[in-house]
Amino acid sequence: MTELSQAAVERIIKKAGAARVSADATEMLSTYMEEYGAFIAREAKKMSDHAGRKTLRGADIRMAAEMFK
Amino acid sequence: MTELSQAAVERIIKKAGAARVSADATEMLSTYMEEYGAFIAREAKKMSDHAGRKTLRGADIRMAAEMFK
Repeated sequence: MTELSQAAVERIIKKAGAARVSADATEMLSTYMEEYGAFIAREAKKMSDHAGRKTLRGADIRMAAEMFK
Repeated sequence: MTELSQAAVERIIKKAGAARVSADATEMLSTYMEEYGAFIAREAKKMSDHAGRKTLRGADIRMAAEMFK
């Protein structure tokens, strides 16, 4: 369902210090991370449109992410 | 450097409507998504500790994510 690899998200949770991680925790964090990413990407798309570009750049992502910190 | 697959993150950006995506945009969004995920995971670890559990569950992730929305 989500784009992100469950193994990658589980590694992120383990790095946070969890000894054991249930499968539903990994799935749930994937969903939240993807929602966050999609939100930033939509805001960044507005920034690139505003700049008259067809290519979404790193600077658009940075501007969007820093605005919603 | 980041745990997340660049291909997956690029798909998330394309779904947001970007016709073209530069490599640095994908890399930057991966970094922000991973920072966000790590932050939620650390807060969720506090929740599972508080509940006296060794296993981090989906409910810990949900509680942490909803607190910082």
